[in-house]
Amino acid sequence: MADGKTGLWIVGARGGVATTVAVGLAALRRGDAPAYGLATETAPFAGVDLPGWDQIVLGGHEVRGGTLLDAARELEAGRVLPIGAADRYADDLARLDASIRPGVLVRSGAAIESLADAASVVPCATPREAVRRVAEDLIAFRDAQGLERVVMVLLGSTEPPVDAGALPTDVAALDASLDDAARCPLRASSLYALGAIEAGAALVNFTPCLGAGFRAIEEKYFDAALPHCGADGKTGETLLKSALAPMFAARALRVDSWVGHNLLGNRDGAVLADPEHKRAKVQSKERLLESLLGDAPQSHVSIEAIDSLGDWKTAWDHVHFRGFLGVPMAMQFTWQGCDSALAAPLVIDLVRLMDLALRRGEKGALGALAAFFKSPLGAAPRALIDEMNTLVEWARR
Amino acid sequence: MADGKTGLWIVGARGGVATTVAVGLAALRRGDAPAYGLATETAPFAGVDLPGWDQIVLGGHEVRGGTLLDAARELEAGRVLPIGAADRYADDLARLDASIRPGVLVRSGAAIESLADAASVVPCATPREAVRRVAEDLIAFRDAQGLERVVMVLLGSTEPPVDAGALPTDVAALDASLDDAARCPLRASSLYALGAIEAGAALVNFTPCLGAGFRAIEEKYFDAALPHCGADGKTGETLLKSALAPMFAARALRVDSWVGHNLLGNRDGAVLADPEHKRAKVQSKERLLESLLGDAPQSHVSIEAIDSLGDWKTAWDHVHFRGFLGVPMAMQFTWQGCDSALAAPLVIDLVRLMDLALRRGEKGALGALAAFFKSPLGAAPRALIDEMNTLVEWARR
Amino acid sequence: MADGKTGLWIVGARGGVATTVAVGLAALRRGDAPAYGLATETAPFAGVDLPGWDQIVLGGHEVRGGTLLDAARELEAGRVLPIGAADRYADDLARLDASIRPGVLVRSGAAIESLADAASVVPCATPREAVRRVAEDLIAFRDAQGLERVVMVLLGSTEPPVDAGALPTDVAALDASLDDAARCPLRASSLYALGAIEAGAALVNFTPCLGAGFRAIEEKYFDAALPHCGADGKTGETLLKSALAPMFAARALRVDSWVGHNLLGNRDGAVLADPEHKRAKVQSKERLLESLLGDAPQSHVSIEAIDSLGDWKTAWDHVHFRGFLGVPMAMQFTWQGCDSALAAPLVIDLVRLMDLALRRGEKGALGALAAFFKSPLGAAPRALIDEMNTLVEWARR
Amino acid sequence: MADGKTGLWIVGARGGVATTVAVGLAALRRGDAPAYGLATETAPFAGVDLPGWDQIVLGGHEVRGGTLLDAARELEAGRVLPIGAADRYADDLARLDASIRPGVLVRSGAAIESLADAASVVPCATPREAVRRVAEDLIAFRDAQGLERVVMVLLGSTEPPVDAGALPTDVAALDASLDDAARCPLRASSLYALGAIEAGAALVNFTPCLGAGFRAIEEKYFDAALPHCGADGKTGETLLKSALAPMFAARALRVDSWVGHNLLGNRDGAVLADPEHKRAKVQSKERLLESLLGDAPQSHVSIEAIDSLGDWKTAWDHVHFRGFLGVPMAMQFTWQGCDSALAAPLVIDLVRLMDLALRRGEKGALGALAAFFKSPLGAAPRALIDEMNTLVEWARR
Repeated sequence: MADGKTGLWIVGARGGVATTVAVGLAALRRGDAPAYGLATETAPFAGVDLPGWDQIVLGGHEVRGGTLLDAARELEAGRVLPIGAADRYADDLARLDASIRPGVLVRSGAAIESLADAASVVPCATPREAVRRVAEDLIAFRDAQGLERVVMVLLGSTEPPVDAGALPTDVAALDASLDDAARCPLRASSLYALGAIEAGAALVNFTPCLGAGFRAIEEKYFDAALPHCGADGKTGETLLKSALAPMFAARALRVDSWVGHNLLGNRDGAVLADPEHKRAKVQSKERLLESLLGDAPQSHVSIEAIDSLGDWKTAWDHVHFRGFLGVPMAMQFTWQGCDSALAAPLVIDLVRLMDLALRRGEKGALGALAAFFKSPLGAAPRALIDEMNTLVEWARR
Repeated sequence: MADGKTGLWIVGARGGVATTVAVGLAALRRGDAPAYGLATETAPFAGVDLPGWDQIVLGGHEVRGGTLLDAARELEAGRVLPIGAADRYADDLARLDASIRPGVLVRSGAAIESLADAASVVPCATPREAVRRVAEDLIAFRDAQGLERVVMVLLGSTEPPVDAGALPTDVAALDASLDDAARCPLRASSLYALGAIEAGAALVNFTPCLGAGFRAIEEKYFDAALPHCGADGKTGETLLKSALAPMFAARALRVDSWVGHNLLGNRDGAVLADPEHKRAKVQSKERLLESLLGDAPQSHVSIEAIDSLGDWKTAWDHVHFRGFLGVPMAMQFTWQGCDSALAAPLVIDLVRLMDLALRRGEKGALGALAAFFKSPLGAAPRALIDEMNTLVEWARR
Repeated sequence: MADGKTGLWIVGARGGVATTVAVGLAALRRGDAPAYGLATETAPFAGVDLPGWDQIVLGGHEVRGGTLLDAARELEAGRVLPIGAADRYADDLARLDASIRPGVLVRSGAAIESLADAASVVPCATPREAVRRVAEDLIAFRDAQGLERVVMVLLGSTEPPVDAGALPTDVAALDASLDDAARCPLRASSLYALGAIEAGAALVNFTPCLGAGFRAIEEKYFDAALPHCGADGKTGETLLKSALAPMFAARALRVDSWVGHNLLGNRDGAVLADPEHKRAKVQSKERLLESLLGDAPQSHVSIEAIDSLGDWKTAWDHVHFRGFLGVPMAMQFTWQGCDSALAAPLVIDLVRLMDLALRRGEKGALGALAAFFKSPLGAAPRALIDEMNTLVEWARR
Repeated sequence: MADGKTGLWIVGARGGVATTVAVGLAALRRGDAPAYGLATETAPFAGVDLPGWDQIVLGGHEVRGGTLLDAARELEAGRVLPIGAADRYADDLARLDASIRPGVLVRSGAAIESLADAASVVPCATPREAVRRVAEDLIAFRDAQGLERVVMVLLGSTEPPVDAGALPTDVAALDASLDDAARCPLRASSLYALGAIEAGAALVNFTPCLGAGFRAIEEKYFDAALPHCGADGKTGETLLKSALAPMFAARALRVDSWVGHNLLGNRDGAVLADPEHKRAKVQSKERLLESLLGDAPQSHVSIEAIDSLGDWKTAWDHVHFRGFLGVPMAMQFTWQGCDSALAAPLVIDLVRLMDLALRRGEKGALGALAAFFKSPLGAAPRALIDEMNTLVEWARR
């Protein structure tokens, strides 16, 4: 039973998604908000034993300065949060703000480093030290708050991709690499993931960063009997792809090309304007189609930072396909979604489901949660509805 | 085993879809065409025992004049059929043309009646006579061609809706009604359906007409141990709805309004420009959302006859939905599909699957084929992927 | 010189547009707002002698109840007005509210009448009495505020169309008709227009209502040496048509069909959901294309009331056209504009320009202002840019 | 008077646009085609003395192999030319084919060079030799066909941009540079332009290449008393921008961002897939907005080569703008145009108008033809309708 309290530790704790999570949980606790956006509140999950809104305790790491209240005001002005929300939940935000700990910044890429605030970064001589500091913060959080379980959620900006060939190939090599700052290829997201293991926490990687997405670290999760899931929350254009591509496949409509253009203007957009960082994101978005269509169409994904759009991701997709006797047809869609408002409830869903996974003793990559991710670990991407069916079955088991 | 030959008897045998079926089967037989658009040719159906292209023999009823060759030329000019197709398959079309029989026209509505050609209409004093004439044509077709099984597919224009309260409520009342031309509420589509029963044929209702969609006739199918399915082929905008609406439901995104505007310019469009006929179609298109979303959003569906578009249905849908904390977002799509090229392969899929159903002794409304229809009989509409999973399971049983 | 003060008397003074005008003028006076949306603040109008923000004094008629402050709060919640605007300008709104006078309701149509509040409607035995009461209110406003000139702007909901054959054909017949409530075909908008003449005010008809749009009343304006202009402000889809259709004409691209679907959810939308009222609006929107394209394409305009959209008019237009050697091509656009925010600055532009017209002694329909209207009086619709060139030339004369 | 014959010499004579011009002129001569797409056939040009269809004689240079008939068949399959066109005009195409001369290839960029056919390229030791060979071909064409006037039209693929700092700054430097193959910065487009001068021909630069777009060569045109115009035909997305951006400016709507994504799949697309070549095109497309809006919005233009689209350019533009009191709104459009069918009639318009210019003795960059170009020479870009008004005025002078 989901008794006691569960910690939700967010890496990137003053970002748009984290702020929306904080305001959202406060609103849910007070009964101010409908359950829109929360998959775990839909009918199929009725009866599944998940923690309630007041059983979830927030904490987190952050490398940027500022306050959650300012972040909430900005989101309110940008039409992400309801009018009046920042003021209404100012006390909740202040309490959380006080408990946020400085983060680690290791090979995070120029675009992320330029956003960081010196006072909010823990200097670490080696990767091992970074892992240790992260673990200490998590343990202190658990102890201070009297938590039964802790789930770390990665919500930081997109790091550049890591060269797969450079990664340690087994646990021993991984452990050895942590002492050599110059040669260890791991970026902060993976060090956070290692910190979570040391602290006995589960991990959700909601970003396109590497995190726990390689074999050696997967073994460590398995050995520690801890579950993790990821990567890269499926919130907008890719969500649509995972709903639409199976339709083309089911009807044997041959997709010749699928082009997606994404515009967004928030901090995410600014980081992704840097080509190195963008590469990781685009890779994650492109993988899907081949899995779902069987055949890979010509595909193109772009992401452009358009300041005026703020948090309002606007995507245009053009699908060119052939039907019977080869006749070419087209479908286009535009998606105008508020990124933080789409991601935040999924983070809450995920912490509830990972709490269940911890109670069930799941270990390693939890493929049953693939429905939430662009690049699921532990499962190949499938039609969204198939993934949802699997998720519901797992949850109700 | 699918041995021998199966008859595909099309009601509306010189229409756009029927002509495309005829050209398409000819092309498939000669290996000229890829299997695009044919669901039964996708991987999940490998190993299912379905009739081959040369096991399917075409015939049909038609109330309009003209020739299939002319119809094919028109479709070629309208970019529905490949350049050169009409000439290449002229012999196949001529052979089929010669075997097409005049149809019946009973309470079909002004818009359909105005398209009919006197020489192509069988005058019938009573509904019972219409049923008999239809059955005789089917039996003659089976005998002449030496067919094992026959499947009738309704592809005619959309009739006005029938007042449900006026329908006969049991088999006896139904039988009795057929002698009274003035009071029998059944339109041609239902008389064709009754004719199929008399001739021992299965029925596919690909139109929004009533056909076999009421309880008394359903009993007759059951008693005759014959299967039928329908109604209203899911080829375009509604296909997309059945792929997309489940995505909103899965993510608890609250759909406030879903507006769909459909433009098309073929004969279908001309018939649907008549408000009486349009009503039947719009009803069929609107039912779906409530089933898929749980809650019914404000919904609006329009169909406009825009001559210049020909067979190229162009639909714009606007979905207005709310996410976390009530923030409103929007999705739009446009669909530019060639209606005949989308429908024709489904007709071929359906005749193959109904042939299987006949061999298996299925009787009554075959809900396992719901994936093909806007208003499925024998099953509530579900997510397209769930419907496909059910279909595959049934087929592979 | 634009000395002294000019009255802006709004019919429909608590509607969305009027409220936005009131808040906007307050913001402009305090220097809170940029000049976005105001054509008269663009470079070509530099040096034209127009009244300043504090020279414009607001008043108006209204048949609905409620307060301007409530209306402003609603617009703020609907993202039409900036966050905090209602509170910031509450005093300005309260002052204006106090001066608003009950309106007249004559043959206004069921949809408008159902919105009216008994206490806000002046009962009038005859049309003549309605005219007199309107004129008295205007004169009282001018005297109380010490105004040099007054411009009445019609912003009420769309009345049903008036049968042109029933209209009085000369001034004498017009005058005679006003005593016979049962037979006078004029609706409120025309009675307001007559009241403006009696009070010596200029008229702007921003609605699709008849207002001063018939010959006999035009003669009266001419005789009274007063200017008027209209009809139906060009704010969204039609604005785009007047920019785009000339492009097709200039390039000899043959437009076969132009379909426009408009969704909106405010009070305007609710009134237009009534078919009688909608007819007037659609007529006004459809006239344009033939003027601009030479040849009339197949055209379809729909307006649907979709509650969730509020003031956010969403339009989809599909243009099907043929180019060289007859090849068919397509253009589509979607427009997501905030109706009140688009209309309000035009109202301010128009009162400034009509003030200039009054000072110049213009009389009758002022065709030079055609750029602002869907159905301009005194000028055929032309390309927007041609209309703007004419306007600038007139203003700088 | 437009007596005698006028030569239309196309550089890129077997490309999609050239082939469409050839088929189109043949169809116009035989009265097979309506005048769609031809601006000079619209009402405002009635009475302007322009050469008739049979007064225009085709010739050209080409560096690629193949035949015009094959090119026409490909365009027919791609739905650019009407069904049957290639066969119907095969004789005209064969005649023209026989007269096409090998072209020059100088610093044309890797993507163009890879398309060239050795037998179709004239080897030239120096730029001067290239100029001379071009001029000789033109003169031979004029003499052989007995032409009164010749207009060269550049229709080749997009060359990489030329560094402006490296260009010769006066006529003497330009002349001197032609002997030094290693140091002369001019690419083929400019050598063709010089060849035209030597042969006494007018020039139309329909491409984004440099051509005659620098001061020293402009002086040579002036000295030779020859007219030229360009650059970069305005056929699709930019045409729309030049119709729409003035609308935003006229209404003081503040454009914050304007993003345009262009997909196309023909040879143009393949060349533009090369970043060096794409740069020239994007520069040409981006210049416009600042001219038309006063203020430059954040702007982004992309061009992607999507094979399946062939000649069917598909563009999506998203315009984010603010209206009254700063409220953000959006407009989107998609354009599905057939590039060759949009460009070809403009080429015919331009040769007719340049013939007029030659007869009138115009010299240097002819700004009156700005309406046809993305980056007009001799005039700043203005609203399309203003440019058209100027053009008509010039033509009717």
